[in-house]
Amino acid sequence: MYETLKTNLEEGIMIITLNRPERLNALNMPMIDELLDALNKADENDDVRVIIITGEGRAFCAGADLDKDGDIFKSDLPMEDTRDGGGLVTLRIYDLNKPIIGAINGPAVGFGATLTLPMDIRIISEDAKMGFVFARRGITLESCGGWFLPRLVGIEQAMEWVSTGRVFSAKEAFEGGLASRIVPADKLLDTAKELAREIVGNTSQISVALNRQLMWKMLGADHPMEAHKIESKYIYWTGRNADVAEGVNAFLEKRNPEFNMKVSTDLPEFYPWWKERTFK
Amino acid sequence: MYETLKTNLEEGIMIITLNRPERLNALNMPMIDELLDALNKADENDDVRVIIITGEGRAFCAGADLDKDGDIFKSDLPMEDTRDGGGLVTLRIYDLNKPIIGAINGPAVGFGATLTLPMDIRIISEDAKMGFVFARRGITLESCGGWFLPRLVGIEQAMEWVSTGRVFSAKEAFEGGLASRIVPADKLLDTAKELAREIVGNTSQISVALNRQLMWKMLGADHPMEAHKIESKYIYWTGRNADVAEGVNAFLEKRNPEFNMKVSTDLPEFYPWWKERTFK
Amino acid sequence: MYETLKTNLEEGIMIITLNRPERLNALNMPMIDELLDALNKADENDDVRVIIITGEGRAFCAGADLDKDGDIFKSDLPMEDTRDGGGLVTLRIYDLNKPIIGAINGPAVGFGATLTLPMDIRIISEDAKMGFVFARRGITLESCGGWFLPRLVGIEQAMEWVSTGRVFSAKEAFEGGLASRIVPADKLLDTAKELAREIVGNTSQISVALNRQLMWKMLGADHPMEAHKIESKYIYWTGRNADVAEGVNAFLEKRNPEFNMKVSTDLPEFYPWWKERTFK
Repeated sequence: MYETLKTNLEEGIMIITLNRPERLNALNMPMIDELLDALNKADENDDVRVIIITGEGRAFCAGADLDKDGDIFKSDLPMEDTRDGGGLVTLRIYDLNKPIIGAINGPAVGFGATLTLPMDIRIISEDAKMGFVFARRGITLESCGGWFLPRLVGIEQAMEWVSTGRVFSAKEAFEGGLASRIVPADKLLDTAKELAREIVGNTSQISVALNRQLMWKMLGADHPMEAHKIESKYIYWTGRNADVAEGVNAFLEKRNPEFNMKVSTDLPEFYPWWKERTFK
Repeated sequence: MYETLKTNLEEGIMIITLNRPERLNALNMPMIDELLDALNKADENDDVRVIIITGEGRAFCAGADLDKDGDIFKSDLPMEDTRDGGGLVTLRIYDLNKPIIGAINGPAVGFGATLTLPMDIRIISEDAKMGFVFARRGITLESCGGWFLPRLVGIEQAMEWVSTGRVFSAKEAFEGGLASRIVPADKLLDTAKELAREIVGNTSQISVALNRQLMWKMLGADHPMEAHKIESKYIYWTGRNADVAEGVNAFLEKRNPEFNMKVSTDLPEFYPWWKERTFK
Repeated sequence: MYETLKTNLEEGIMIITLNRPERLNALNMPMIDELLDALNKADENDDVRVIIITGEGRAFCAGADLDKDGDIFKSDLPMEDTRDGGGLVTLRIYDLNKPIIGAINGPAVGFGATLTLPMDIRIISEDAKMGFVFARRGITLESCGGWFLPRLVGIEQAMEWVSTGRVFSAKEAFEGGLASRIVPADKLLDTAKELAREIVGNTSQISVALNRQLMWKMLGADHPMEAHKIESKYIYWTGRNADVAEGVNAFLEKRNPEFNMKVSTDLPEFYPWWKERTFK
């Protein structure tokens, strides 16, 4: 049981709800730890096929829980040992083997906005607002937003939002590429779940995990040959495993496939194929 | 003469037509070899200014020609020597000196979809469908799609299409950034040819080749200084060659230029300026 | 006083106007030197919070000032020492600590188009036209356009514009992602200034500078961990400085912040944190 989160697993879909509604789900230290724990557990559990993150009450997340003089931004460690807590969370999301969907139910500013950037898909309620407000508080972009945001919405839109620090409407977020769907508030979670069900009901969890890692990692690769090297291994390996026989036969027989391979036990021996990054 | 393709060269435009209509132009081994051969020949032939790829009959390409248990994905070689055949084709397209246009006339799924990703421009018929269906068959993205797709449509759209494995409409493809034009079926080839003619009729083939290599290769470069180094050489070299005098004088005299330099013989001595990538 | 430019500083906004209207503001050697000088001075002056570049008269910039046989492209230096002058300007823009907005008031072709690419935001007049016309003159993309253009508008749109060399309407520029706003000619400069004022009036210049460098540099980074390393330093450092206390307290007290830190004197000791690139 968490102090700052609620979790619920149903139909293969793990819903993680930020749960400090009296503080508009603002980020504090326990929430960082609990998000990391919940993401780790979801990633290890084969019953979790898709993760959804949303907020309790009227906000998604109001950002860091601010106190006088911005003391929350002060660290007791030396500079070289201090790590941005938001970045720990977004780096964990980046490495997930499961797709993750953001269901942005209300205001999402500061960390509330950058938290959504490494998610695969963002769906936004018409009532939500977003803002990369850092420059209005004298601080800077965090949670690896410097890497994720320009890749997601382009450098022009990223520079406008970050340089003005403006809070903007759900419509502006959608039109600027920060969400792929905008829906009425009462349809938000259903829309996210419907998309999750489409993944759960039709696909091999092994294929989904391999593809997710491939595409996110290739965003940082300098030549398509890097993809070719990995994909050639992928195809060799999947071609000899049970899911491909089931998937192809189901297709030829015009029936739904029933895939049995599991992420926890059946990933290939050459996985992870990327070099893990360290902070130092 | 090819077994799986038709080719036709007219007005500087080489049309390569996938030609197994009875199998919805599904990919088999001969088609890989013949595509590589046709692309090589088109690249070497100065009379070919632009390449168009389309499909015979009602499909563009139905993907790999599937057999029971997905035997087509099984390799006899050791894993470290097995290469994805689709990737050989898309890497060849990536290195072309000529612009290439996809004219997607009908269903394009699996390899049929990833084949189009390294093309410069995609035009889609209203009747077409596309799908990155790999996760529904227990396999994974191929043809360097892991590198090309997120660069083309963004990681959010890429993750949605690849994680659901959904087959989607031409309209969804167009709106998601997978094609730059959507046209009625009977206008498809004319639209592609009109665009090709605009290139053929107005430009220096040397300039087009140098620009194509520059932009695709710079997608993988980490700093604009890398472009500055190459572009400085480009300008020095083009500035001393015949096409620039013809191009500038034609502009000043308000007439159409007649460029005479050829890709086969007149590329600069510092070309290729990039390091060729090897598989191992 | 400049021969080819006008400059005007008001309300924290430095407007640099290309000023050779009798030549449609075409680029000559003095304009390169003067642009570099004006950008350097604007970057060093703390009273300059935002830079706007626009053109005098009916054009933005007609590109290189062409002469017979394209002699302007001929260099007296050896190839390895010749640098593209446009690239010197766009690399300087890339390294700015201040946001920069392009106000494209009329035709912007060749260098007139590539000059705008490293700017953060482009606003275009309905009367303007743009064109990457290089292949129609027998030359090639310059000003690091090979790096900037595909990142800004995607490789598909970039290849179409560059391979055809077509001059296209403001509407096509806007729809293709080359400008974020299209406005009537008489609203152009007001729109740019309004956006600049939104930055000037609300943000810490230190935050804006740190964010600008972060996002542009991260476009070339291969992993979000690279952002995490820098952002962790940023947060540690900003968290101990005056602007964060002012920014957070102003927010908590619901008043406008008054930031006092200056780019000229108060950037962190670990700045610049990137490796400077050299030409050789």
